[in-house]
Amino acid sequence: MDTLALLRAASTATLTSVLREHGLRNTFMHGVAPLRPDCRVAGPAFTLRYLPAREDLDDRPVDNLTDAQRVAIEQVRPGDVFVIDARGDTRAGTLGSILATRLQRRGAAGIVTDGAYRDTPAIRALAMGCYAAAMNAHTNKTIHHPSEYQVPVACGGVAVFPGDIIAGDGEGVVVVPAHLADDVATEAAEQERLEEYLLRRVQDGAGIVGTYPPNEDTLRAYRESRS
Amino acid sequence: MDTLALLRAASTATLTSVLREHGLRNTFMHGVAPLRPDCRVAGPAFTLRYLPAREDLDDRPVDNLTDAQRVAIEQVRPGDVFVIDARGDTRAGTLGSILATRLQRRGAAGIVTDGAYRDTPAIRALAMGCYAAAMNAHTNKTIHHPSEYQVPVACGGVAVFPGDIIAGDGEGVVVVPAHLADDVATEAAEQERLEEYLLRRVQDGAGIVGTYPPNEDTLRAYRESRS
Amino acid sequence: MDTLALLRAASTATLTSVLREHGLRNTFMHGVAPLRPDCRVAGPAFTLRYLPAREDLDDRPVDNLTDAQRVAIEQVRPGDVFVIDARGDTRAGTLGSILATRLQRRGAAGIVTDGAYRDTPAIRALAMGCYAAAMNAHTNKTIHHPSEYQVPVACGGVAVFPGDIIAGDGEGVVVVPAHLADDVATEAAEQERLEEYLLRRVQDGAGIVGTYPPNEDTLRAYRESRS
Amino acid sequence: MDTLALLRAASTATLTSVLREHGLRNTFMHGVAPLRPDCRVAGPAFTLRYLPAREDLDDRPVDNLTDAQRVAIEQVRPGDVFVIDARGDTRAGTLGSILATRLQRRGAAGIVTDGAYRDTPAIRALAMGCYAAAMNAHTNKTIHHPSEYQVPVACGGVAVFPGDIIAGDGEGVVVVPAHLADDVATEAAEQERLEEYLLRRVQDGAGIVGTYPPNEDTLRAYRESRS
Amino acid sequence: MDTLALLRAASTATLTSVLREHGLRNTFMHGVAPLRPDCRVAGPAFTLRYLPAREDLDDRPVDNLTDAQRVAIEQVRPGDVFVIDARGDTRAGTLGSILATRLQRRGAAGIVTDGAYRDTPAIRALAMGCYAAAMNAHTNKTIHHPSEYQVPVACGGVAVFPGDIIAGDGEGVVVVPAHLADDVATEAAEQERLEEYLLRRVQDGAGIVGTYPPNEDTLRAYRESRS
Amino acid sequence: MDTLALLRAASTATLTSVLREHGLRNTFMHGVAPLRPDCRVAGPAFTLRYLPAREDLDDRPVDNLTDAQRVAIEQVRPGDVFVIDARGDTRAGTLGSILATRLQRRGAAGIVTDGAYRDTPAIRALAMGCYAAAMNAHTNKTIHHPSEYQVPVACGGVAVFPGDIIAGDGEGVVVVPAHLADDVATEAAEQERLEEYLLRRVQDGAGIVGTYPPNEDTLRAYRESRS
Repeated sequence: MDTLALLRAASTATLTSVLREHGLRNTFMHGVAPLRPDCRVAGPAFTLRYLPAREDLDDRPVDNLTDAQRVAIEQVRPGDVFVIDARGDTRAGTLGSILATRLQRRGAAGIVTDGAYRDTPAIRALAMGCYAAAMNAHTNKTIHHPSEYQVPVACGGVAVFPGDIIAGDGEGVVVVPAHLADDVATEAAEQERLEEYLLRRVQDGAGIVGTYPPNEDTLRAYRESRS
Repeated sequence: MDTLALLRAASTATLTSVLREHGLRNTFMHGVAPLRPDCRVAGPAFTLRYLPAREDLDDRPVDNLTDAQRVAIEQVRPGDVFVIDARGDTRAGTLGSILATRLQRRGAAGIVTDGAYRDTPAIRALAMGCYAAAMNAHTNKTIHHPSEYQVPVACGGVAVFPGDIIAGDGEGVVVVPAHLADDVATEAAEQERLEEYLLRRVQDGAGIVGTYPPNEDTLRAYRESRS
Repeated sequence: MDTLALLRAASTATLTSVLREHGLRNTFMHGVAPLRPDCRVAGPAFTLRYLPAREDLDDRPVDNLTDAQRVAIEQVRPGDVFVIDARGDTRAGTLGSILATRLQRRGAAGIVTDGAYRDTPAIRALAMGCYAAAMNAHTNKTIHHPSEYQVPVACGGVAVFPGDIIAGDGEGVVVVPAHLADDVATEAAEQERLEEYLLRRVQDGAGIVGTYPPNEDTLRAYRESRS
Repeated sequence: MDTLALLRAASTATLTSVLREHGLRNTFMHGVAPLRPDCRVAGPAFTLRYLPAREDLDDRPVDNLTDAQRVAIEQVRPGDVFVIDARGDTRAGTLGSILATRLQRRGAAGIVTDGAYRDTPAIRALAMGCYAAAMNAHTNKTIHHPSEYQVPVACGGVAVFPGDIIAGDGEGVVVVPAHLADDVATEAAEQERLEEYLLRRVQDGAGIVGTYPPNEDTLRAYRESRS
Repeated sequence: MDTLALLRAASTATLTSVLREHGLRNTFMHGVAPLRPDCRVAGPAFTLRYLPAREDLDDRPVDNLTDAQRVAIEQVRPGDVFVIDARGDTRAGTLGSILATRLQRRGAAGIVTDGAYRDTPAIRALAMGCYAAAMNAHTNKTIHHPSEYQVPVACGGVAVFPGDIIAGDGEGVVVVPAHLADDVATEAAEQERLEEYLLRRVQDGAGIVGTYPPNEDTLRAYRESRS
Repeated sequence: MDTLALLRAASTATLTSVLREHGLRNTFMHGVAPLRPDCRVAGPAFTLRYLPAREDLDDRPVDNLTDAQRVAIEQVRPGDVFVIDARGDTRAGTLGSILATRLQRRGAAGIVTDGAYRDTPAIRALAMGCYAAAMNAHTNKTIHHPSEYQVPVACGGVAVFPGDIIAGDGEGVVVVPAHLADDVATEAAEQERLEEYLLRRVQDGAGIVGTYPPNEDTLRAYRESRS
């Protein structure tokens, strides 16, 4: 399997553990929850940055040719995950169902924001990997000014650089730095195999001691089980 | 359709957009979520106001003839939405399933609070349009003093005057000032028709530019589609 | 029915009401929600206390023989509810699915924390009475130091002493002090019977006055209905 | 001394203790701090209630004859403490230095809000008993709608009824229900005398045991010291 | 006086009022307080943007030639106000006294952050116009990654574009968009003159009605007083 | 100088930097501010742990022989810093001026809590190194149950073990693990000497590059300046 498929198959719990072994301790977005716990997603981040709105910039009709949100959406590529830095402010939505549908039509793999969506029920029905901090029906420009796209952003308290791999499951969203993605994918797959084995042993009645974390005996048994 | 039916049919996202064109930017309750995302509601607000509890007023048996909560409930009219200003304090419930059932039996269309409910699972089972900020099993008088009813209140950061129309969907709750209700209802229905058309175009592959917001060509095509 | 069965059958709303009549006003955990609203639980608390992590103590492999979390888990008895004081900090999980499975295998009746779980979807699938404030994939040691077990703890703003009865339903979690458990169980069962009767009357159209709270006529009718 | 003088002389710590003996546990405003820790105040509450602003009501010039804030200020009587319920929202001021000066000129004893002031440095210079949760230069109507005056309000999480006595010192603000004011004043003066005596003993080296709370010997010595 | 001198002389309360007449309602930074209430400042914003830290970027010695914070500081010009977007995160300082001293030595007029300072007592002693949300001794890289400078930022919930005029007094900080600075400065000076006149009238015993806001008679008297 | 004197002389900013070189990144208490910015303190932690109050335990007269707070105070030794874990809850004080005076009389070097004090003005007048998150006149038992002393606690988000060195200055409080205290004290003194030298160079006009952090030339000059 390729890197994205491996990252999509791994749980975010496994990914944070592997990233921690690479020295990274702050990789899971705080307060950003799945609309669809049944959807998984992995893909490169395409970022959009919101600032606080200013009325002379934002209280006027959207110009599709210059509005950073609209321009960004029309540049998203198949497989991208659209990541919106909303400064954790949920007093308005960051986008609604028409733009989410457009992103899906362009092939986006998911949408992530530490703000809110509007039209959340309709976005949920798209069955994409969508994540947000809240629902709020107010339009984005009520409090947000779309500022720039494909710049580094903060989302859910984690730094996201364009091209970092965004991986989401029913628990939330992990950011895998681009330069670590291949290694993390491989190591995560291996860790999941080991943990599935350990889980079966625990289901069969094994105690924690010697099993989790595994001691040498357990690791040997694990390796034999795979040969 | 009449005004309430139109408001019930519109999404809260559409209603906030229409209200914003009337100059109102703060109409969606913050942090107030549906118990039943499948229920929609629209009806005039019947308000109840809670103050912080004071033991000499609230640590004694409820007197149904003077307790503002109980008196209010027995004055709710069919179609009303009961709105409880709990100052956003979720350290106790604002009412439980017996009173919610009584409200339903009196014909209330919904219940909204920026506090919590108690007996939430039972209230959810009533299949009404109920909205709250949290679940909390403590009785209301632990922290709330029922003070007055049918006075202006704050709920979820939005002003609610008795008789304002409360409209809720699977995303949350919008307050439509009474004097704007007819206009907003009509305009919302029109905007929803247009947005459904635009959504279909986006589903069919149209890009955002020229479509959302629609340019003159798109608007002409829309009008032709409806004639 | 025995005490635990009665407490499990009662709603948390009923239990807080009964406890308030015993003078206790702060017995429902704030911000601690069920993973499975369909699961109920009642059992004695087995407590674990987390402190903020310190790197020289926590940035090293877990030693199953000394780590307070692991030692505690291997001492949980059938029927216990495992309660983790996470200081309300949700920036990491407090345990994941392998340890939750081990707790289930040991016969634990439930798991409660005012922090987060990791592997939340897998823990939800265990169909236990599990409660938490959030989901977070980071491992516990990122921010938590497992300090002591079976000591008094705070969870969701409520004091929990080892052996207190933890009762949970689809609304959340109540702490019943050990010395009150038998009385509260009996009184709760009686109160639930009465409230079911009152609810039926309300469903049949009775007004609140005289019914809730019940006056002497209503109480007499209730007693007759039960004889 | 009269009641107000006694309440002004007592510390808020003493007042909360005395009120607790009357069964009231929530009498000190949370998060409301003095602008001038050197100023003490005690006087009857004159209340003003703010709702969230609505643009059609609040985006227009202030009409002094109908605006509830302005009408209220011109009804404040000498000795009153002006209490503004701002729902704890500090995103704008609740009043500024011209209105504070007017209140001082009318003889108000103090101003209290759980919102913010604007022109705070100028208000501080008035050397009145002024208390607030924050400083914010935005005018009140940016987020607040002056709704009613002399109605019950919430301020800093405490219920305030018109006429309740508001007492403030360098620590903050206590609300003394009107019907308890005389008793609380007398008891507070007595408790302060006792505590001053106990403090001197502690300053002289006495241990806590037997001194605080005082045992019979200590109480006898106290009574002798006063005869 | 030139624009900056006028803006420095005006209170932030006056500036927000003038900006509101230009349609801008969100111009005062929320939660950003002066270290020195006696210092006033006005100057063009020189911005620095922090992202959440990532250990592979930030757990290593600072390189003065590439670290955005250090490079930015060495480009600040005399009169600039250095504005640091810290995402409101106060879990570490954003800079300390050596860098603050360097900024002062380069002629910076002030420093503003919605995060914290470290070495706050030493920074306070510099007697510059410094503003922050908190004090925190941890070094910036504990949680912040210096990302870019002279880009648009958010600070205290307000958008700041490089070159916007930052004006601070003993209450806090206002952002004046660059294109409005000249007009706002002139209008603010005029409004302050009027308000000083009105304040004197109120000090002399005038009621609010007719005075604040001033009616035609009051305005005429004001104009006469100035001729 | 001995270890405590060195730690008292160092700023908390220096101490966090030195601790970070030992791998500890979370050592400064969040949200805990000095009552007296002019007081410095360093001494071993004597800890007290509060749980949420429970009425059957806490709504009764204090028994000085069993109440954990009182017993703890009478065991504090000269030079100790009394640290109270209040779970960050500021809805009541943790102690007042009589107990603070007793602690001072016993020779305590300071008092630290992540809750509030009551009688704050009187405690401030003691001129000790006292730190808290807020002021609140309510007595501790309103929300706190004194549970245990000399156990590990959390305070301001940092783990504190009995005997850890608590060091405070005008910025706040750092926790130095006991086993690192000697090394940290020595290294902090050396770092302060270096930083004072660097600060003088910056005051004399040196740029940041090569100076902060110092390159080899700067370090050589520093060493020469000290020989």
